[in-house]
Amino acid sequence: MAIQKPTLPKGTRDFGPLQMARRNYIFGIIKDTFKLFGYQQLETPSMENLSTLTGKYGDEGDQLIFKILNSGDYLKDVSVSDLGAGAGATLSKVSEKGLRYDLTVPFARYVVMNRNEISYPFKRFQIQPVWRADRPQRGRYREFYQCDADVVGTDSLVCELEILLMIKRVFAQLGLNDYAIKLNNRKILTGLAEVIGAAGRESELCVAIDKLDKIGWEKVQEELLQRGFVQEAIDKLNPIISLQGSNKEKLDFLSSFLVDSETGLKGIGELREVFDLLGKYGESEEFVDFDVVLARGLSYYTGAIFEVKVNNVSIGSVSGGGRYDNLTGVFGLEGVSGVGFSFGVDRIYDVLEELGLFPEKQLDGTEVLITYFDEQGRDYGLKVLSQLRSNLVSAELYPDAAKIKKQFTYADKKQIPFVIILGSEEIEKGQVSLKNLSTGSQESLSLESAIDTVKSSMLNHGS
Amino acid sequence: MAIQKPTLPKGTRDFGPLQMARRNYIFGIIKDTFKLFGYQQLETPSMENLSTLTGKYGDEGDQLIFKILNSGDYLKDVSVSDLGAGAGATLSKVSEKGLRYDLTVPFARYVVMNRNEISYPFKRFQIQPVWRADRPQRGRYREFYQCDADVVGTDSLVCELEILLMIKRVFAQLGLNDYAIKLNNRKILTGLAEVIGAAGRESELCVAIDKLDKIGWEKVQEELLQRGFVQEAIDKLNPIISLQGSNKEKLDFLSSFLVDSETGLKGIGELREVFDLLGKYGESEEFVDFDVVLARGLSYYTGAIFEVKVNNVSIGSVSGGGRYDNLTGVFGLEGVSGVGFSFGVDRIYDVLEELGLFPEKQLDGTEVLITYFDEQGRDYGLKVLSQLRSNLVSAELYPDAAKIKKQFTYADKKQIPFVIILGSEEIEKGQVSLKNLSTGSQESLSLESAIDTVKSSMLNHGS
Repeated sequence: MAIQKPTLPKGTRDFGPLQMARRNYIFGIIKDTFKLFGYQQLETPSMENLSTLTGKYGDEGDQLIFKILNSGDYLKDVSVSDLGAGAGATLSKVSEKGLRYDLTVPFARYVVMNRNEISYPFKRFQIQPVWRADRPQRGRYREFYQCDADVVGTDSLVCELEILLMIKRVFAQLGLNDYAIKLNNRKILTGLAEVIGAAGRESELCVAIDKLDKIGWEKVQEELLQRGFVQEAIDKLNPIISLQGSNKEKLDFLSSFLVDSETGLKGIGELREVFDLLGKYGESEEFVDFDVVLARGLSYYTGAIFEVKVNNVSIGSVSGGGRYDNLTGVFGLEGVSGVGFSFGVDRIYDVLEELGLFPEKQLDGTEVLITYFDEQGRDYGLKVLSQLRSNLVSAELYPDAAKIKKQFTYADKKQIPFVIILGSEEIEKGQVSLKNLSTGSQESLSLESAIDTVKSSMLNHGS
Repeated sequence: MAIQKPTLPKGTRDFGPLQMARRNYIFGIIKDTFKLFGYQQLETPSMENLSTLTGKYGDEGDQLIFKILNSGDYLKDVSVSDLGAGAGATLSKVSEKGLRYDLTVPFARYVVMNRNEISYPFKRFQIQPVWRADRPQRGRYREFYQCDADVVGTDSLVCELEILLMIKRVFAQLGLNDYAIKLNNRKILTGLAEVIGAAGRESELCVAIDKLDKIGWEKVQEELLQRGFVQEAIDKLNPIISLQGSNKEKLDFLSSFLVDSETGLKGIGELREVFDLLGKYGESEEFVDFDVVLARGLSYYTGAIFEVKVNNVSIGSVSGGGRYDNLTGVFGLEGVSGVGFSFGVDRIYDVLEELGLFPEKQLDGTEVLITYFDEQGRDYGLKVLSQLRSNLVSAELYPDAAKIKKQFTYADKKQIPFVIILGSEEIEKGQVSLKNLSTGSQESLSLESAIDTVKSSMLNHGS
């Protein structure tokens, strides 16, 4: 067999020890927060039937689902006339399964299949990879993790409050302080369409307004004209586009602006209640910014819409979500209202790296490396190793009697903070020499004292 | 669109909150142990190029790899003459990627691609799902997790010692005491083939002997005859098949039995050293059982071979591994020796369930549910909720002012140990009523005292 130089598939990555430690640091904070708020973990299979996946993400989404070839003679149902008919025509003959494209559709499928066992309200979180056959580019991968939390089976706005609180806690724990949670409500967008005389066209309005940040009001107006909105209607939006002030001031303005839209006023009322609940929980609302032009593309939101942006970094949105009133309808279960959101872990990773916010001691792992010169040292080292681990100190014995410099280089590369050196003197006295690699200090100690020193250093580093 | 009743693909499973809590319990113990021993985590992509995967698992294995359909017009290179030519002929035209089949080949690929950045000895662990298009049956799934730990870049037998110690620690932490680690050495099997006059045929010998447990010595002899071993050679194996005694007694017998095989004696020497290291670490060897007929199918082992069986349960092997001297050779990097093993988490799960060994409090999560009767109760509850979470007590406020019975049912189903009840009396006094759902006791307390009560209960349950 010819020897091949191995490569990775386009758009995929290995995560070595340092990246894993950093990713686990982020996952850990997110998971702890979800649990503190009473969310329970769910995992669904990587593969779903294509019948479950297709038709849920739009035509473009369907194209981007990775399909799995049927086992065995997969071409047996393909006929000569199928060749040249294009990919869509024969897909059902060669593939019946696809890879998970997001965590929302599998969650909806789970709820429908387990509707009678679930106790509502059902608060679930899910942290798993998803796959998309997108063209790979910087910051966009074909395999990436999503971290979702959703609660279904209640329309209480306490759930919206809790999402704001969870985002706040995660960002505080990560040391990310300069960010804003943008908050809007789909019903307000519906109301806007009504009062400008374009009732029922809020989806088109949203698609155009969604680009305000990127292309500016001028170009958004052009797009609205092209989509058939009349100039008179567009002009009515002017005060909305330039809306400034505190959350309360903006809500007060909207209350009169939307006075003729029952739905719009309902949206205002919901937002007011969320801010009210925030105050009752004892939180200031300054980290939440009511943004009347926040639309987010997804058309299934029916109430609150969230988006989180970190300020002064090159990366855009790192989290988002909203309320939907009919998540499971497509699988035949109507009337399940819910609200959820997602953390973009890859983007949060990039933000923390850009801002230098990862903890100094990154490689969680070995605290002590035991080094030695000969077989006698190794044998003594085995006893030392056993004692360290019994005391829950992560420790290694260098496996070979290599040159001491080589053993120290190993400790250095692995960011191991302490080295124990076992020479003939230490063995004779029944002691150990403990060297702190960051301060350079070294002392001869009883093993018990060495363990105490290492353990108190672990406590200080929070490891 | 017609509404479909959703189903799961054959051989795949959802893991709901209870299963996830139990699985995380197992994963947590395994991960902690790997880290205590200085192993670092690696994750590789779910997809690998087919050129990386094929040819590594035998013909049958190649069939069982899930292949991913190329994006776009995947049939464009398929010709009329390809139809009916069978699956193998056209595969390279429609698919270039497959799903991970195990964790060993991706690890070898990673080592080769990162050979210059890695500091050796490289101790890595990896916990990820793998996929096999096997026929699903009880206990066999198409998606399942593997938990591997390997160390490469050293042939020190300290690594073999550490694998025994890691297995012992994981089983002790899981409360699994009645098990045995079977240990053998491939060189001993090589030596056996030599001394019975069938030098170089240890692979065939292994395949047959591997079935001893299942089909008995009589049938194994038949198979050996069929494979062309002569009766005289087979008869020489008799004392080996019936070998009894302590590890030392068995090794002593083998030392004379294999006296004419240099390789065989080397294997004996390696095993003796592993037992010796175990003693120097301060461990008795009674949990390790030298088993001269342990072969395991995999032909790439060159030294130690491990297998773990739990006694008195219906499930067989739950862990296994061994030393290999040429893991990365197939990717062009020669001479990388390593040793590794794998925990079968799905099987360990079944064993713990069969023996009733999962902890009593299984659903890690919410410690306190706050219940109330009206809006005034909810508003007071929000403050209570905020205090509980600031004290790192996982807590929920029931989101709607539902009937109190419904709120209690929710706590019950979610195994929440404490309920706080907020009626008008509690609100007036600025207190809370705390009910312990397992004892049924209820008392009126200050919020601070209630938090203390819950926290000391959490400590007792180790959550």
